[in-house]
Amino acid sequence: MRDVAVIGVGMNKWGELWNSSHRDIFVESALLALDDAGVDHVDSMYVGCMSSGLFVGQEHIASMLADYLGQAPIPSTRVESACASGALALRQGFIEVASGLNDMVLVGGVEKMTDVGGNEATYALGTAADQEYEGYHGITFPGLYALIARAHMEKYGTTREQMAMVSVKNHKNGAKNPLAQFPFEVSVDQVLNSVMVADPLRILDCSPITDGAAALILCPVEKAKELGKPIIKIIGTGHATDTIALAQRKDITWLEATYLAAQQAYAMSGKKPEDIDVLEVHDCFTIAEICVTEAVGYFEKGKGGEAVEKGLTTVDGKRPVNVSGGLKSKGHPVGATGVAQVIEIVKQLRGEAGERQVEKARIGMTQNMGGSGASTLVHVFERE
Amino acid sequence: MRDVAVIGVGMNKWGELWNSSHRDIFVESALLALDDAGVDHVDSMYVGCMSSGLFVGQEHIASMLADYLGQAPIPSTRVESACASGALALRQGFIEVASGLNDMVLVGGVEKMTDVGGNEATYALGTAADQEYEGYHGITFPGLYALIARAHMEKYGTTREQMAMVSVKNHKNGAKNPLAQFPFEVSVDQVLNSVMVADPLRILDCSPITDGAAALILCPVEKAKELGKPIIKIIGTGHATDTIALAQRKDITWLEATYLAAQQAYAMSGKKPEDIDVLEVHDCFTIAEICVTEAVGYFEKGKGGEAVEKGLTTVDGKRPVNVSGGLKSKGHPVGATGVAQVIEIVKQLRGEAGERQVEKARIGMTQNMGGSGASTLVHVFERE
Repeated sequence: MRDVAVIGVGMNKWGELWNSSHRDIFVESALLALDDAGVDHVDSMYVGCMSSGLFVGQEHIASMLADYLGQAPIPSTRVESACASGALALRQGFIEVASGLNDMVLVGGVEKMTDVGGNEATYALGTAADQEYEGYHGITFPGLYALIARAHMEKYGTTREQMAMVSVKNHKNGAKNPLAQFPFEVSVDQVLNSVMVADPLRILDCSPITDGAAALILCPVEKAKELGKPIIKIIGTGHATDTIALAQRKDITWLEATYLAAQQAYAMSGKKPEDIDVLEVHDCFTIAEICVTEAVGYFEKGKGGEAVEKGLTTVDGKRPVNVSGGLKSKGHPVGATGVAQVIEIVKQLRGEAGERQVEKARIGMTQNMGGSGASTLVHVFERE
Repeated sequence: MRDVAVIGVGMNKWGELWNSSHRDIFVESALLALDDAGVDHVDSMYVGCMSSGLFVGQEHIASMLADYLGQAPIPSTRVESACASGALALRQGFIEVASGLNDMVLVGGVEKMTDVGGNEATYALGTAADQEYEGYHGITFPGLYALIARAHMEKYGTTREQMAMVSVKNHKNGAKNPLAQFPFEVSVDQVLNSVMVADPLRILDCSPITDGAAALILCPVEKAKELGKPIIKIIGTGHATDTIALAQRKDITWLEATYLAAQQAYAMSGKKPEDIDVLEVHDCFTIAEICVTEAVGYFEKGKGGEAVEKGLTTVDGKRPVNVSGGLKSKGHPVGATGVAQVIEIVKQLRGEAGERQVEKARIGMTQNMGGSGASTLVHVFERE
């Protein structure tokens, strides 16, 4: 397998983009990525998108987006793994370049979530849960993560305040990210007094509904060198699955698929948790960030909440997590999230992250998951 | 890139399977494929599915199906390219095995289409067209293919009877396929007098709405030899895209993406149209088979209808096409179709196709497309 580098990144400003369509926001981000890479043509493309069928009444989007980007007739492939669709697109693009089949591959993610009314967005997101054993009984994702939160509190003594501190930290980071949907700070008090969604989770524990897209350009490392681009290598990929229904797991406080995907990515890259300088994780809810940091081996089981409280995960902490603002502040257009995480890591490793730059960042990692963790992808990146 | 073989195939009986769920029919076919390959574990899997979100209210199916098949926590990836989703799963599985990342990969396709009521299936299928420029103006797929048919008749003199003969031939083949949804013969008169759907296309020109699944097991050729399996090699893959809206094409009678994907597959395999012993194509409507046989180079532009009339595409004709019964008789569970086409080719090349066996078949090809041809995949197979 060939070594693969990320040579271009592009992302539009995220938010409620009522003046732009699904195809508009994708093309905008993809053009930025092509510009950044300094190329105007790719050999192939991958698009991560969870549910364009339910959100905008459009499937077959890989062909449509290739055409609107001016790249047809290239091969174009949509992949879906709920909220992990973006990282899945990266993995497939990585495999294609590594295989030698094609050199220049665009990897994008997109979701247009605000064109539906009523509770349709909640229904669409709910299709990432087991519809026969979870959805049809009325539970949606805030409820599922509330169960996880309550169990984590009972089992490990994790506090309501610790969860709030995840939101406070991520909003503090996001306030320095001009592309974030909600680039402002919040206080612990504000989180604790915000509207209850599913006890114990309040609205400021939840990532938002977002329109957004993100894109990367991949190519073989050899080619990146010829082009004179900064070399950000993908040195590890991991991908694992779990039962889709929460009730079928042995321990709902433990994200087994995240653990396994991280172990694969560490093994492939030869890195350990302590080698990672900067980490982006899937904080769809504040409790999720706590569970993920435990499953990737950053902290011991049950100690994720305490680590946040101690300030270990801030930009200048020992283990910076979600310096981009995370899903919480940056926004969570589900198909695009996994790609945007990579963009943050690339910017950090290039030293282009401005006010939220982690000092001397050389190795970064992303963790992106679907549903309540039934699919997880972990990738490790290194600046040469 | 490593050489890749198909060592197992499995497919359930297709039809209106009201006693089985989406996950049931997938698992049934996948278990048959594992049995056929003689393995009980795979390293990774790909699932082609067009719109489980709209058909059964379930996304995130790759994880769900891996779990229900007893294969979690393996990596599991869903791909979507409308009605070409099945062949896209094959291509991604092929790339993964060829890359060296994993050895034993399951490739499946599934669609459960009859659990919706009213015109919801027509709506779901319509999301393969350009919703902003086609769907929202009221046209659905029978209408789009009717436009193609009318243009082909005007430009090349293709007759209503020639289109009917595609249906007659495919039903004759399907009558010998015990897994087909409609395993019976029809006459030219019956086709010409069946209910009008979109002039000039009648109901017996249209492939049906189907519940069904299909699965394959891929591995490196070297590994297949160790296992003592018949070697059916994938020697060519092609994948191309086109404008999603019909109105944006130069000539709606010509399937450019099919032409390009076929050229890629011929180039990679070193084969020409005349080397192919047996061909499965995407006859979602009778006119589609005529256009495809022209675009893959079987017949000259405009001569596809005449070729059917002359009997060139029958099982014992010079250029057998859709000996399985095609989408018309076998059924068209959209995500599974591209995988089932491969199953027919594997059975033909193994000499296991029974009454519909093409004599001395050694090289086969599949063509699977999405929408009105905006995505097309072509694969070439050879028995060693």
